[in-house]
Amino acid sequence: MKHPDPDITHPKIGLAPGTIKYTGSAPKERVKLTVFVYNESFIEMKVYYDWSELEKYIQKFDDSYVKWLNVDGINHIHLIEKVGEHYKVHSLSLEDIVHIEQRPKFEEFDHYLMCIFRAFYYLEGSDDAHKMQNLISEQLSVVLAKDNTLISFQENISVDPFEIIRKRLSNNKSKIRRAKADYLFYALLDATIDYYFLCVEKLGDRIEGLESEVIKDKSISISAKNLFKIYRLKKDIIQLRKIVWPMRDMVNSILHSDNEMISENTKFYLRDVYDHVVRIIDGIETQRELVSGLIDFYLSMNANKMNDVMKFLTMISTIFIPVTFIAGIYGMNFDIMPELRHPYGYFIVLILMFIIILTLLFYFRKKRWM
Amino acid sequence: MKHPDPDITHPKIGLAPGTIKYTGSAPKERVKLTVFVYNESFIEMKVYYDWSELEKYIQKFDDSYVKWLNVDGINHIHLIEKVGEHYKVHSLSLEDIVHIEQRPKFEEFDHYLMCIFRAFYYLEGSDDAHKMQNLISEQLSVVLAKDNTLISFQENISVDPFEIIRKRLSNNKSKIRRAKADYLFYALLDATIDYYFLCVEKLGDRIEGLESEVIKDKSISISAKNLFKIYRLKKDIIQLRKIVWPMRDMVNSILHSDNEMISENTKFYLRDVYDHVVRIIDGIETQRELVSGLIDFYLSMNANKMNDVMKFLTMISTIFIPVTFIAGIYGMNFDIMPELRHPYGYFIVLILMFIIILTLLFYFRKKRWM
Amino acid sequence: MKHPDPDITHPKIGLAPGTIKYTGSAPKERVKLTVFVYNESFIEMKVYYDWSELEKYIQKFDDSYVKWLNVDGINHIHLIEKVGEHYKVHSLSLEDIVHIEQRPKFEEFDHYLMCIFRAFYYLEGSDDAHKMQNLISEQLSVVLAKDNTLISFQENISVDPFEIIRKRLSNNKSKIRRAKADYLFYALLDATIDYYFLCVEKLGDRIEGLESEVIKDKSISISAKNLFKIYRLKKDIIQLRKIVWPMRDMVNSILHSDNEMISENTKFYLRDVYDHVVRIIDGIETQRELVSGLIDFYLSMNANKMNDVMKFLTMISTIFIPVTFIAGIYGMNFDIMPELRHPYGYFIVLILMFIIILTLLFYFRKKRWM
Amino acid sequence: MKHPDPDITHPKIGLAPGTIKYTGSAPKERVKLTVFVYNESFIEMKVYYDWSELEKYIQKFDDSYVKWLNVDGINHIHLIEKVGEHYKVHSLSLEDIVHIEQRPKFEEFDHYLMCIFRAFYYLEGSDDAHKMQNLISEQLSVVLAKDNTLISFQENISVDPFEIIRKRLSNNKSKIRRAKADYLFYALLDATIDYYFLCVEKLGDRIEGLESEVIKDKSISISAKNLFKIYRLKKDIIQLRKIVWPMRDMVNSILHSDNEMISENTKFYLRDVYDHVVRIIDGIETQRELVSGLIDFYLSMNANKMNDVMKFLTMISTIFIPVTFIAGIYGMNFDIMPELRHPYGYFIVLILMFIIILTLLFYFRKKRWM
Amino acid sequence: MKHPDPDITHPKIGLAPGTIKYTGSAPKERVKLTVFVYNESFIEMKVYYDWSELEKYIQKFDDSYVKWLNVDGINHIHLIEKVGEHYKVHSLSLEDIVHIEQRPKFEEFDHYLMCIFRAFYYLEGSDDAHKMQNLISEQLSVVLAKDNTLISFQENISVDPFEIIRKRLSNNKSKIRRAKADYLFYALLDATIDYYFLCVEKLGDRIEGLESEVIKDKSISISAKNLFKIYRLKKDIIQLRKIVWPMRDMVNSILHSDNEMISENTKFYLRDVYDHVVRIIDGIETQRELVSGLIDFYLSMNANKMNDVMKFLTMISTIFIPVTFIAGIYGMNFDIMPELRHPYGYFIVLILMFIIILTLLFYFRKKRWM
Repeated sequence: MKHPDPDITHPKIGLAPGTIKYTGSAPKERVKLTVFVYNESFIEMKVYYDWSELEKYIQKFDDSYVKWLNVDGINHIHLIEKVGEHYKVHSLSLEDIVHIEQRPKFEEFDHYLMCIFRAFYYLEGSDDAHKMQNLISEQLSVVLAKDNTLISFQENISVDPFEIIRKRLSNNKSKIRRAKADYLFYALLDATIDYYFLCVEKLGDRIEGLESEVIKDKSISISAKNLFKIYRLKKDIIQLRKIVWPMRDMVNSILHSDNEMISENTKFYLRDVYDHVVRIIDGIETQRELVSGLIDFYLSMNANKMNDVMKFLTMISTIFIPVTFIAGIYGMNFDIMPELRHPYGYFIVLILMFIIILTLLFYFRKKRWM
Repeated sequence: MKHPDPDITHPKIGLAPGTIKYTGSAPKERVKLTVFVYNESFIEMKVYYDWSELEKYIQKFDDSYVKWLNVDGINHIHLIEKVGEHYKVHSLSLEDIVHIEQRPKFEEFDHYLMCIFRAFYYLEGSDDAHKMQNLISEQLSVVLAKDNTLISFQENISVDPFEIIRKRLSNNKSKIRRAKADYLFYALLDATIDYYFLCVEKLGDRIEGLESEVIKDKSISISAKNLFKIYRLKKDIIQLRKIVWPMRDMVNSILHSDNEMISENTKFYLRDVYDHVVRIIDGIETQRELVSGLIDFYLSMNANKMNDVMKFLTMISTIFIPVTFIAGIYGMNFDIMPELRHPYGYFIVLILMFIIILTLLFYFRKKRWM
Repeated sequence: MKHPDPDITHPKIGLAPGTIKYTGSAPKERVKLTVFVYNESFIEMKVYYDWSELEKYIQKFDDSYVKWLNVDGINHIHLIEKVGEHYKVHSLSLEDIVHIEQRPKFEEFDHYLMCIFRAFYYLEGSDDAHKMQNLISEQLSVVLAKDNTLISFQENISVDPFEIIRKRLSNNKSKIRRAKADYLFYALLDATIDYYFLCVEKLGDRIEGLESEVIKDKSISISAKNLFKIYRLKKDIIQLRKIVWPMRDMVNSILHSDNEMISENTKFYLRDVYDHVVRIIDGIETQRELVSGLIDFYLSMNANKMNDVMKFLTMISTIFIPVTFIAGIYGMNFDIMPELRHPYGYFIVLILMFIIILTLLFYFRKKRWM
Repeated sequence: MKHPDPDITHPKIGLAPGTIKYTGSAPKERVKLTVFVYNESFIEMKVYYDWSELEKYIQKFDDSYVKWLNVDGINHIHLIEKVGEHYKVHSLSLEDIVHIEQRPKFEEFDHYLMCIFRAFYYLEGSDDAHKMQNLISEQLSVVLAKDNTLISFQENISVDPFEIIRKRLSNNKSKIRRAKADYLFYALLDATIDYYFLCVEKLGDRIEGLESEVIKDKSISISAKNLFKIYRLKKDIIQLRKIVWPMRDMVNSILHSDNEMISENTKFYLRDVYDHVVRIIDGIETQRELVSGLIDFYLSMNANKMNDVMKFLTMISTIFIPVTFIAGIYGMNFDIMPELRHPYGYFIVLILMFIIILTLLFYFRKKRWM
Repeated sequence: MKHPDPDITHPKIGLAPGTIKYTGSAPKERVKLTVFVYNESFIEMKVYYDWSELEKYIQKFDDSYVKWLNVDGINHIHLIEKVGEHYKVHSLSLEDIVHIEQRPKFEEFDHYLMCIFRAFYYLEGSDDAHKMQNLISEQLSVVLAKDNTLISFQENISVDPFEIIRKRLSNNKSKIRRAKADYLFYALLDATIDYYFLCVEKLGDRIEGLESEVIKDKSISISAKNLFKIYRLKKDIIQLRKIVWPMRDMVNSILHSDNEMISENTKFYLRDVYDHVVRIIDGIETQRELVSGLIDFYLSMNANKMNDVMKFLTMISTIFIPVTFIAGIYGMNFDIMPELRHPYGYFIVLILMFIIILTLLFYFRKKRWM
C-alpha cells in the first residue's frame, strides 16, 4: 500500500454526495453473492453471481428464517445498487460501503442499521527494510435490515474473519442458529475483534523480541536494523490505534441505541465485545509506553557505551602526547644540548617518561575516569 | 503572507464593535455579484456589479425558487452593507464576514443563519527555502436567509471551491436543483471540505517522500534541506490542525441546531460532513505522530552513523599515537643509546611497533568496538 | 517586577478574610475619581478627589442616566471602602479589587456584579538580557451596580485600555450612548481584549523574527542571544496563557449568568468577546507549538553543523597521523637502517605517504564521510 | 511470564462466545473447594473436592447463614460449570472467570453480581538482569449470589490475599461475622487492595534506593546496571498503573450500583476502598513523575561529568601539540639552520615552549575552561 | 523523612477496617486537649489532658456557644476513641484521622462532617545535598459536629497554622466571634491555605534565584549543584502539586454539599477559599512550565558553550598536525634528501608551514567556524 495513512486518500472532489464509486484496489473479479438461509432446524447455503436470481430465492423464506447475504468484493457498483434498492439502503450508506477508507461508525436508519468497521490481520514476514508494515486492514460493512436479514460487504483482500462463523453455522446446536440476525451481527463483529487480539499479541512479541535483543546487545553502536524495527513497530501501533479508538465509540453507540432490531440479549453479548475493545485499547496504550521506555533505555545504554569508548581512546592519546613531546625535544638538532652528552641522559629521560605515564594513569584512576 | 499565524493579526483597537472594515489583502477590484436563481425545472445565472439592479431582479422570484447570491471579493464595504441591510444581517455579522481572520463558527439569528469557515488549497511548488508554506487558506462566509436565499462571500484569493457546485447546478437532474437553499449550503460546505482531504493527502505524500529519503539516505550528516522540509511540514500540519478542530465544533453545532431553516434531510447529509471532518482530524493527528516518529528515527539514525565515524577516526589516531611515540624515542639524539648501535635494533623496533598495532586492533575487535 | 509569577506573591497570612489591603506597587499618588454621566442626548465628565462631593453630584441623576465611575489608583483604602459602602459591595469583593493578583473571575451578588480581569500591554524595547519581559499586565475590576452605574478600578501602571472608550463616549451617535451600563461594561471588556490581540501579534512578530534569523544563520554555534530570546519568548507566552485561559471561563460564566442586569442584547455582544478570547487562545497555543517546532529545528540544525565541523577536523588529523608515524620511523637514529642508504629511499617514502593520504581520502569519500 | 503485556495474549479466535476454557498456566492440580458457613454465633469450615457433596452440605443452611465458597484453582472446567449452573451464572461470566486476562470489571445480573479484579504481589529478589519483573499478579473473581452466598475463584499462583480474612472470620467478635455476604465481598476487595499499597511502597523504596545511588555516584559513566534498574522500575510502574486505573472505575460502578444485594452500610465501607484506590493512583502517578525527574537528573549529571573529562583530555592534547610542532622544526635535518648553531638556541627554545604552555594554560583559565 | 512519597507507606495489611492505629512518627508525648468556648460576648480557653473532665466542662454550655476542641497530637488512641464515641464519629473516620497519609477529602455523615487536609510549611535552610526537601507537611483533620462544635486534630510536627485563628478569637470584634462553628471551620481552612501561598512564593523565589544564576553563569560546565537544586525544586513542586489538586476537589465538594451545618454565608467565604486553591494550582502549573523552560535553556546554553570549547581545541590540533607532519618529513635521516642541502631549504619550509597555517585559519574563518 502506498500511502502512510490509507484513510486519507482518494478524495472525491467533484462527485455529488451519494455518488457510489469504489475507491479501493481489490482485483476486479466478479462479485460473489453468498447467501445463508437458516433457522434452528434448517440451513441452506447458495452462491449467486446475479442479483435477480438471488432475489427470487430469498423471497421463498419468511421472517422466521435468518438470511445472511455476503457480498464478496465491492467493486461491482451496479449490483450493490440493486441490493441497496431492494433493502431501501440510502445512497449515502452505499457510498460509505464502497468508499473503503471509512472511520468505524454505526448509523441508524428507518429501514436498517449500518455498521462499518475494519478488520486487521497480521502478516508474518521478513523484517526487510522494504516492507513497511506487518498490519494490513480491510473494510467490512454490515447492514442489518428489517426482515431478519443481514447483508455483509467484504473487500476480500486477505484472510476472511467471517469464515469461522460460517463453520459454526453448520453446527445445529450453535447459539447463532437459535438466534436472530442481530446475534449474527454480533458474531461477525466478535470474530473480527478476535483478530485484533492476535495483532496486539504479535506486536507484543515484537516488543519482547526487541527487548531481549537490546539487553543482549554488546556492540557499541545501535544497529540501524533495530532502529528501523522500532520505527516500523511504532508505525504499526499508530495505525492500529487510529482504528481501535473509534471502534470503541462505535460499539458504545450500538450499546446505547434503542433500536428494536437489536435485542437486549444481543446487547448483553455486545457488552462483552465492548470490554474486548477496551482491553485492546489498554494493551495498545501500554505497548506505546513500553516501546517508548525501551527506546529511551536503548539510546541511553548506547550513548553510555559510546562515551566509554571515546573516553578510553582519548585517554590513550592523552597519555602518549606529553611523552611524545619529550621525545621530540631530545630529537632536536641543536649543537649545544647538554643532556644529550650526559652518559645516562637517555636512561634518565626514559625513566622520566615512564613516571609521567604512570602519574597520568594514577591520576585518571583516582578521578575514577578508568 | 507575512505572519506565522494569520489568525492573530490586524487588531482593530479603537474601532467600535460592529464597524465593518475589510482586513484582508485581496486586490481592490470591483466586487462581482453572481446570482443563481433555480428550481427543479428552471435555472438562470446573472452577474451584476450593482446592488440595486440585482435587488430588482431577484424580487421577481417567489420563495419556491432558490436564490444563491455570491459576493466575489469582500473589500467593497458599501455594497456589503447594502446586502446586509436588505437581508437584515446584524452589523456584527457583517464585521465578521469582512474581517478575514475568523475562527470557523456557526451563529443563529432571527432572520438568518451565518456560517464562517475556511477553505484550504494546496500549492504544489518548489521546495525552496524562501517559500514558507504550501497551504494557503481563504475565508468563506455563508448566510442562509429566510426566503430560500443563500448568500456566500468569497475573498477570491485562489482556487474557487464553489466552482464544482456551479457546474453541478446546470444539471437538471442534480439533487441540488430539487432541494432548498439549506441543501445548497450543505453542498458548498461539502465541496470545501473535500479540498481538506486533498491537503491531508498531499501532506501524506510529503511525509512518505521524506520517509523514503530518510531510509535511503546513506550520508553521515542530516541534510539541512531535509530538516527544513520537516520544519515546514510541521508548520503546515499545525496550521491545518488549528482550523480543522473548530470546524468540527462548527459542524456539530449546525447538527444540534433546531432551527427550522435546516431541514432534517439536510442534517442527514451534514452528518456525513461531520464524519468527513472527524476523519480529517484523525488523519492530521496520525500525521503528527508519524512525523514525530520519523524525526526521532532520522535523528537517532544519524547520531548513530556520526558516532560510528567519530569512533573509527579516533581509533585510527589511537593506534598510531603509541607507535609514533616509540619512533620519537629512537629519534632522540642522545650520545649513548645502546639500542641504536645494535645491528638488529631497527628491525626489532619495527616488529615491536607491528605487534603493538596488532594488539590494539585485536583489543578493539575483542571489545567489539570495530 | 521581581517575581517570576506575580500572581503568587504577598500572601496575607494572618489577615482576617475581607481585610482590605492594597498589595500592588503602584505609586502612592492621590486617588482620582473620574465620573461620566450620560444618556443619548446628554454627557458630562467630572473629576473628583473626594467621595462625598462625588456622591452629591451623582445623586442628581436618576436611573435613565448611565453613571460610569472610574477609580484611578487603588491604594487609598478608605475611599474605596466608602465607595463600597455606598454601593453595598461586600468586603470580600473590595479585598479582591485591591489585592492585585487575582485570577480573572466573574461573581454575582445581590446588589451588583463584579468582574476582575487583567489588561496586557506589550512594551517594545531592547532585547537586552537584563529585561526579562516585554509583557506587562495590570488588574482591572469592574462593578456593575443596580442603578445603571458602573464602577471601574484601575491600577494605572501603564497604558489605559479604557481611554478609547472615553473618546467614543463623546460621539453622540455612539452605540454606547444609546445603551445602558451593561453595554459600557461590554465595551470596557472588549477594549481590554483588543490589547491581547496586539500582544499575540507582537509575540508572532518575535517568532517570525527568530525564524528568519535561524534560517539565515550560517554560523556553527547557536548564539546565546538567540537562546535567551527564545527563553524570554516562552516566558511571555506562559504568562499570557496563564491569564487567557481563565478569561475564557470568566466570559463564559457571564454569558451563562441569568442576571437581569445584563441584557440579552449585551450578551449578544459578549458572545463576540468570547469568540475573541477563544481566537486568542488558539493563537497562543499555535505559537507554543511553533516555538517548540522552531527550537527543535534550530537545535537539530546546529547539532548537525557542529557534527560536520568536528568530523572534518577529526578527518584531517586522521589523515596526517599515519604519515607522521612513517616520518617518525625514518627519523630514528639506528645505525643500521637499510632504507636510509637507498638512493631513492626518500622519494619512495614520499610517494608511499602520498599514496596513503590518497587512499584515506578515497576511503572517506567512498564511505560518503566527506 | 513470557509476554510483556500479559493481558493481551491467547486470543480465543474460533471459539464460540461463552465457551469456557481456562487460559492460564497454573498447575493442573485438583481443584479444592473450601466452604465457610457462618453467622454471628456459628462457624464451620469444610474442604471438598467434589461439587455434589458440597451441594448437599450447603443446602442444610438457610439464608441467615453466610456461605463463602472458595474455588482454589480454576482449571477444572467441569466443576466450575456445575457451580455456575447451580447459581445460574451466565456462561459469559464463567468464560470471564476462567479466562485469566480480564480487565477489572463489575457486572450486575439478575441472579448475581460478578466482580473480577487482580491481586498484585511484590516479589523481593535479586536485581539480576534475567528477571524482568518484581510484580506478579493474579486474577480473582467474586460472584455474589442471591441467597447470602459468595463464591470466590482464585488462580492460586502465589500469596493468598484472602488468608487474612479467613483468620479474621474465626474471631467471633469480628464485624464480618455479624454482617452479610456483601460485607465479606468488601472485606475480600479491601484485603486485596492492601497489597497494592505494599507494591507501591516497595516501588517507592526502589526509587529512593536509586536516588541515593545516583547522588552518591562519583563515576563518570552511567552504570548499565542502574539504567536497567530504571528500565525495570518503569515497566513495573506501567504494569501496575494499567490495572489500577480500571480498578477505580470498577469500585466506582459498584458504588453507583443500586442493586439491593449491596447494602448502604457496605457501600459506606466500599467508599473507603475507593479512596484507597485513588490514593494508590496518586502514588503511582507521583512515582512516574519522580522516576522521570530522576532519570533526567542522572543523564544531565553524567553528560556533564563526561563533558568535563573530554574537555580535560582534549585540553592536554591542545597544550602539547604546538610545542611538539616546535620540537619537530628543530628536529629537521637541513644543512643550514642558523638557530641550531646558536650557543643558547636550545635554552631559548625550551623557554619559548614553556611560555607557550603557560600562555595556553592562562588563556584556558581566563576563559574559565578549567 | 524517609520515603519519597510519604502518602504511600505503612499499609495496614491484616488490620480490620475501622481499626484505629496511629501511623505517623510524631513524638509520643501526652495528648493536649485545648478547648475554646465562645460567643459574641464571652470567650474562655481551657487546657485538659483528660477527656472526662473536658466532657463535664463543655456540657455546661448550650448550643449558642461555639465549642472548638483541638486535639494536639493524635497518638493516644484511647482518648481519640472517647472523643469519637461522644460525638458519634464513625470508626472509619477515626481511622482516617489517625492514619496520617490521607488524601484531602470531605465526607458527610449523619451526625457530623469530616474534612481531612494537609498543611504545608516551607523550611528555609541550607541547600546541602543531604537535605532532600524544603517542604514539610502535616495532616489536619476537622470534625464539624451537630451542637455547634468543631473538633480539630493536629499532628503537631511543626508550625501551627491555627495559631493565627486563636489570636483572632481573642478580639471581641472579630467576625469569628459573631459566627457559628462552620465559620470557624472556614477560618481554619483559610489559614492553612494561606501557608500554601507562602510555599508557592518560596518556590518562585528559588526559580528566580536559579534563573539569575543560570543567566550569569559564565563557566563551561553545568554545576552539579545547580542540577541538584533543579532536581530538588522539581521534587518539591511534584509533592505540593500532589496535594493541591485533591484540595480543589475537596473544597468543591464542600461548596456543593447541601448539608445544613454549613450556612450559605460560610459557603460564600468558602468560594473565596476555592478561588485561592485554583490560584495556587495555576501558580504551581506555571512554575512547572517555567522550571522546564529554564532547564531546557540551561542545557542548550551549556551544550553550546561546550561545543564551542571542543571546536576551538580541535581546531588548534588540526592546524598543527599538518605542519608537524612536514617537520617530521625533514627530520628523516635519508642519505639523499636534496631539499636538506639547499641553502634556503629551511627558510622555504618555514614559510611553507606558515602559509599552511594561514590557509587553514583563513578557511576556518571563511566557513565561520571561528
